Amino acid sequence: MPELRKDPVVGRWVIISPERGKRPSDYTIKKAPRDEVFCPLCPGNEAVTPPEIFAFRKKGTGPDRPGWNIRVVPNKFPALKPQGDMERRREGVFDRMNGVGSHEVVIETPDHDKELTDLPLSHLKKILFVFKMRTEELAKDPRFQSVVVFKNRGREAGASLQHSHSQIIALPIIPKRILEELYGGRKHYRNTEHCIFCDVIEQELREELRVIDQNDDYVSFSPYAARFPFETWIIPKAHTSHYCQIRQPQYQTLAEILLKTLKRLDVVLQTPPYNLVFHTAPILKEDLPFYHWHIEIIPKVTKVAGFEWGTGFYINPSPPEESAAYLREVSLSE
Amino acid sequence: MPELRKDPVVGRWVIISPERGKRPSDYTIKKAPRDEVFCPLCPGNEAVTPPEIFAFRKKGTGPDRPGWNIRVVPNKFPALKPQGDMERRREGVFDRMNGVGSHEVVIETPDHDKELTDLPLSHLKKILFVFKMRTEELAKDPRFQSVVVFKNRGREAGASLQHSHSQIIALPIIPKRILEELYGGRKHYRNTEHCIFCDVIEQELREELRVIDQNDDYVSFSPYAARFPFETWIIPKAHTSHYCQIRQPQYQTLAEILLKTLKRLDVVLQTPPYNLVFHTAPILKEDLPFYHWHIEIIPKVTKVAGFEWGTGFYINPSPPEESAAYLREVSLSE
Repeated sequence: MPELRKDPVVGRWVIISPERGKRPSDYTIKKAPRDEVFCPLCPGNEAVTPPEIFAFRKKGTGPDRPGWNIRVVPNKFPALKPQGDMERRREGVFDRMNGVGSHEVVIETPDHDKELTDLPLSHLKKILFVFKMRTEELAKDPRFQSVVVFKNRGREAGASLQHSHSQIIALPIIPKRILEELYGGRKHYRNTEHCIFCDVIEQELREELRVIDQNDDYVSFSPYAARFPFETWIIPKAHTSHYCQIRQPQYQTLAEILLKTLKRLDVVLQTPPYNLVFHTAPILKEDLPFYHWHIEIIPKVTKVAGFEWGTGFYINPSPPEESAAYLREVSLSE
Repeated sequence: MPELRKDPVVGRWVIISPERGKRPSDYTIKKAPRDEVFCPLCPGNEAVTPPEIFAFRKKGTGPDRPGWNIRVVPNKFPALKPQGDMERRREGVFDRMNGVGSHEVVIETPDHDKELTDLPLSHLKKILFVFKMRTEELAKDPRFQSVVVFKNRGREAGASLQHSHSQIIALPIIPKRILEELYGGRKHYRNTEHCIFCDVIEQELREELRVIDQNDDYVSFSPYAARFPFETWIIPKAHTSHYCQIRQPQYQTLAEILLKTLKRLDVVLQTPPYNLVFHTAPILKEDLPFYHWHIEIIPKVTKVAGFEWGTGFYINPSPPEESAAYLREVSLSE
């Protein structure tokens, strides 16, 4: 029997309609072959990107030269432009403003053929640190209201370049998805004085039906009202509204659980394309009692999509309890 | 300069980030070839589908036999099941209910190779009538709160069968997208005593920047904060909240503008895959002053998507004014 499930944060109903006998291998999609074209993110090609904003590099090497381990550059084809004022204006019933914003690329490794899962933990920790550092830096600009860190892996997930990278966008508005989470979270907080995300974590850890991994600081799980097969979240156990509140020892535990999660997805879904997005509270000084930052990973495994855009309801053929079981079963003992 | 635009109904900000020199032909995607497999929707194969719910058929032909022009059958692999009670229940912070609902397929023509745009106007009018009739019938079931009529054309848009068809889903809940439109509409109505959709139509018709076609009853246009290239809406000029309020002469004018719109999209985007969704008010007897039914057509032309799911903001490389101009320019004089 299919089931309707309500997302406890934003109130979205999802149809969980298991297709009989569907196995993870039915989700593996034909991926475009890696091509051998010129890569603007590779060492030696630093002059092709705009001048670097930041890099971890070997002593004695200068900016925009080889010798870096992680390199942050402005996006050469930004969706938003950093210069100018917003000039918000009204035209009848419509509102518009200039597309002011920042769009950066974090080149995660100099090695063209390495994925996040091929990197040592110490390297992953540095990437997580770079996300925090750049977010904090962008948050200083009074024009911006939110910063979104995200990664598209694979052309099918929207990556136009194969070389492993993430993106950081700073926006003069709050994306609708985050607004919905804020509204839903505030409503629950008003009614219960609890953070809805904390309540979800408490229940997930107690029931253990959808939990994949956990350590002292973080838990990864398949959300109850998952929109997509193998949708996976990573969330801090302790209430924290902003990613930038991460403390030094947590880079280790976050890198550990992120690496495990990505490796599990790679095994079960045969290196799927995916979107990975940091959901964090808008730029503010104080901690919000009703919001809880987290990472959402959406493997791009269903061949088609688009229907959901029109109707706003999602049909997920994979119960999250099953997805979690498949992911948990993976042996990571190499 | 990219621009941020706010959807006047649901409040979503969209980035309109024109890519220099991008032409409609850059959006045409490689489509899967039509395959020659057995088609369960073709005449002669009626026994393969569940027994028909309704058909327009030649005199003297019986149900589930050839001789039909339009045929409605239950979906053989429904996302929701019509039997049973909803049994809504709470489990800690989570809500669920049985996946009770109805899922029907409208086979739009007996001819396997015909598209909607190949059908005569009189045939299209009958299809529009069937949508209304089935919606009204499903609305009688007290378990249902909303009925969604939609069409996926092309495998890339989610159609698993090539034979031209639409789908009708009845749901015990209101899809989030419709809820958002209802909330946004109500808010505007409270502030202004106007329907926001009526205000949009008034401004669109006055400015003529984004209008594609119009007749006595309907207008087609590219919405101001379009999320996707060549996203196109068709909306009644007079305030009407429910599709089922359509009157006899309007089948003609709606069929006319729908046919024109689909033909224009086919010319400009070279027969694109698309999702077409009827947005109508939830099942209710009375007319709502703050909601306005309409059709949204989303050509599936961007090669990739998924990023938007994570962040809730859309980057549209095609300003709707340009899309509308391309569509208007098409000569339909054959």
